[in-house]
Amino acid sequence: MGENEETWHPVVRAMREISYFILKSTETLDISQIESLIDLLYKAYIEKRKVLVMGAGRSGLVGRAFAMRLLHLGFNSYVLGDTIVPSISKGDLAIAISGSGRTQLIVTAAEAAKKVGAIVVAITTYPDSPLGALADLVVWVPGRAKSSRMDDFFARQILGIHEPLAPLGTLFEDTTAVFLDGVIYALMLRLGANEEDLKSRHANIEL
Amino acid sequence: MGENEETWHPVVRAMREISYFILKSTETLDISQIESLIDLLYKAYIEKRKVLVMGAGRSGLVGRAFAMRLLHLGFNSYVLGDTIVPSISKGDLAIAISGSGRTQLIVTAAEAAKKVGAIVVAITTYPDSPLGALADLVVWVPGRAKSSRMDDFFARQILGIHEPLAPLGTLFEDTTAVFLDGVIYALMLRLGANEEDLKSRHANIEL
Amino acid sequence: MGENEETWHPVVRAMREISYFILKSTETLDISQIESLIDLLYKAYIEKRKVLVMGAGRSGLVGRAFAMRLLHLGFNSYVLGDTIVPSISKGDLAIAISGSGRTQLIVTAAEAAKKVGAIVVAITTYPDSPLGALADLVVWVPGRAKSSRMDDFFARQILGIHEPLAPLGTLFEDTTAVFLDGVIYALMLRLGANEEDLKSRHANIEL
Amino acid sequence: MGENEETWHPVVRAMREISYFILKSTETLDISQIESLIDLLYKAYIEKRKVLVMGAGRSGLVGRAFAMRLLHLGFNSYVLGDTIVPSISKGDLAIAISGSGRTQLIVTAAEAAKKVGAIVVAITTYPDSPLGALADLVVWVPGRAKSSRMDDFFARQILGIHEPLAPLGTLFEDTTAVFLDGVIYALMLRLGANEEDLKSRHANIEL
Repeated sequence: MGENEETWHPVVRAMREISYFILKSTETLDISQIESLIDLLYKAYIEKRKVLVMGAGRSGLVGRAFAMRLLHLGFNSYVLGDTIVPSISKGDLAIAISGSGRTQLIVTAAEAAKKVGAIVVAITTYPDSPLGALADLVVWVPGRAKSSRMDDFFARQILGIHEPLAPLGTLFEDTTAVFLDGVIYALMLRLGANEEDLKSRHANIEL
Repeated sequence: MGENEETWHPVVRAMREISYFILKSTETLDISQIESLIDLLYKAYIEKRKVLVMGAGRSGLVGRAFAMRLLHLGFNSYVLGDTIVPSISKGDLAIAISGSGRTQLIVTAAEAAKKVGAIVVAITTYPDSPLGALADLVVWVPGRAKSSRMDDFFARQILGIHEPLAPLGTLFEDTTAVFLDGVIYALMLRLGANEEDLKSRHANIEL
Repeated sequence: MGENEETWHPVVRAMREISYFILKSTETLDISQIESLIDLLYKAYIEKRKVLVMGAGRSGLVGRAFAMRLLHLGFNSYVLGDTIVPSISKGDLAIAISGSGRTQLIVTAAEAAKKVGAIVVAITTYPDSPLGALADLVVWVPGRAKSSRMDDFFARQILGIHEPLAPLGTLFEDTTAVFLDGVIYALMLRLGANEEDLKSRHANIEL
Repeated sequence: MGENEETWHPVVRAMREISYFILKSTETLDISQIESLIDLLYKAYIEKRKVLVMGAGRSGLVGRAFAMRLLHLGFNSYVLGDTIVPSISKGDLAIAISGSGRTQLIVTAAEAAKKVGAIVVAITTYPDSPLGALADLVVWVPGRAKSSRMDDFFARQILGIHEPLAPLGTLFEDTTAVFLDGVIYALMLRLGANEEDLKSRHANIEL
C-alpha cells in the first residue's frame, strides 16, 4: 500500500482496508473445508435437495445474496425469513452464517435443522462457538465478531492505523459475501454453468 | 498478483478477482460525488430527515446492509420492501441502487420519490441510464451491469483470465457493499461516532 | 345484531363490523370470476406452473399468507419482495392484489408480468382501474379503497354507526384474506388434499 | 345461516365459516385482557416507547399488518424480520403472536425481549403454553392451533359440517387479524385520531 494512506479520503481508506482484508483472507482460508462445502452443495444440486440459508442481520443479507445466486444456478434454495420457506428434512442442507457463532435465533434455527436430520454447515469466525459445535461442517471465515474488542488486524498491522475502519461485524460480512461469490464461481465450473444459464433464471420481476 | 493464479483454487481466484476489483475501484471513484453524498447524509442526520434506501435483488440487499448501519449511527433510515416504511416528503433522502440504472421497479420508485420532493441519489454504473437521468445526485460505482456482455475488466487485463469469475452484477454489488461501508466510516468520523455508539443501537433481537 | 351495539367495547364493535362485512360480502361475490380463478390455479398446479403473488403494503401481506398456503398445497408459489423469486414466463400465473387497482409498483409489476406472457389476475374492488384494465381476469372483492371517502357501508346502513370503524383499506384487506382462505379450501377439495397434506409441507423452521 | 349451506360454493362456505367464527369470537374474548393491551399500547405511545411485533409464518404476517397500522397511528413500531429493527430495552413493548404459543423462534425471541426488560404480550390460544407462561400479559384469541386435531367448532356445531374448512392455524390467524384491527380502532378513539391522520403517515412509496 502507498505511504500516504493518511491523506486518502476516509471512504477510500475504509474500502482499501476492507478489500485488502478480503484479499489477504484468501491466504488463510482452509481449502479442505471449502471443498467439503462445495461437495455438499454439488450433492444437494444433483439430488435436488433443498438448501436453506440462515443468518441474522447483515449476515442474513449476505446469506440471501448467496441463496439468490444458488437459485440462478438451478438450486432449490430458500432463506429463513422469506415468506416462501418449505419444510426441510433428512439430507437437506442448512447453511447458517454467524460471525460470532452465538446469534441466538440462528443457533436455535440450526438446532431445529439438525433435529430434522438436515446437514448443518456453519460459516463463522469462531469454530468453538455454539453454532460451530453443533454443525456437521464448519467453514472458517476471518473477521471480527460484533462482540470482539480486538482491533482490526490489517488496519493495525499493515496500514498502521489504530482506528476501527470497519465497525462491528463488517469485515466478516464483506469477506463472507465475497467468499460465497467465490463458491458460486466454483459451482459454475463444477456444474458447467455459464453466465447465460444464470441470467435465464434471474427474476424478471423483482424488488 | 502471483504468477501461478491458474493453480489457485477457483474460490480463491474469484475472491481475488473481486477484492482486487474493489481495491482498484478506489482509484476511479469520483471523490466530489462521494463528498456530495456524505453531505446529503450528514444534512439528513442533523435535520432528522428520513433516508429511504431502494434497490432490487442483490442490489437491494446491499442497500439493506447500508440502511442497517445508518440505523446504528442514529439515522431515521428505512428500506423499500420492509414492512415498516413511513411516508416520505420534501427534503427526505431517497437512495436508489441499480448497476444498470434500468431496474424497472426501482426507476418507478425513484420517480415517485422525486414527485413527493425527496432528494434522489442514484448509485449506478450508468449515469446516462433512466435512473441516473432523474437523480439529483449520481454516484458512480464501477461494475458490470447484469445486461452487459463486456468481459470482466480485471480478469482480462490483469489476471489474463478470459472467463467470467464474477457473473452478472456481482462486481457492482460487492463493490457497492464495500463502498457503502466506506461511507459509513466517513460518517462515523463526521459524526464523531465510535463503534460503541453503533453497538448500542444494534438490534438485540434480530433475524 | 343486538340493539345495544353502542355499549359494546370498541374492539368488539370493529370486529363485528369487519366480520359482518366479510359475511355479507359472500352474497355479492361473482361466482363465475371465482371459478375462473380456481380453474387457473388448478391448471397451474397440474402443469407445475409458477404462481407469483404481488401486492403492496397490507394487501401484500394478505398475498403472502395466500402464497404460503399455496406452498402447503404443493404449488410452486412465490411472492414479489421475497429473496427467492424465480424468472416467470408464458403460461405462469401472476396474481396482483390491490384494493384501488392503482398502487403504482403493483401496476408496474403486473405490466411486466403481462409482457413476459404470464396470465395476470387482478384482485381488486375497482375493475375499471389500471390494474383491472390490464388483467386477464378480474376478481372483484368489496372494500373501501384507501383513497375512498365513502363511509363504511355496513357501519352506516346496518349498524347505523357513522364513524369509520375500519380505516383505509382494512375492509378490502380482511375480506380478501378470508376470500383467499376460501379459495384454499376450494383447492383442497379440487385436489383432494387434506390438512395432513398441508401440514407435511409447512415450514418446520420459520420466522 | 341459511338451510342450504351444502349447496353454497366452497369458497362461500369457508368464508362464512371463518367470518362467523370471528363474529362469534367477540362473545368469548376477555375484555379485561383487551383493556390491558390497549393501556400498554397507549402508554407506549405517550412515552414514545418502541413496540416490536413478533410472529412466525402467517401469524407473523398478521403481526406485520398490525405494526403497519401502529405506524400509521404514529407509534414507533417495528417487526422482527424487517431489515430495520432497533435495539429494544426496559419499558419497550414486545408483542408475540403464536396460536400454539410453542413456535420455537418466537419463544426464543420473547425470552430475549424479557431478558432486556421489555414488557412481553402474548397473543395466543394457549395461555398455558411456553409463550403464555413467560408473558407479562396474555391476550387470548380463539382458534385451532396448527397442531390441534380438534374439529372446527363452528363447522361442526353450527353448520353441521364435518370437514376442516379452515386448515391449520387459519381460524387463529384470521381472527387475530380482525381482532388487531379492532385494537387499532380502539386506539384511534383513545388517541383521537381519524382516518386522515392515518393516511398522512401511510407509505407513499411501498411494496
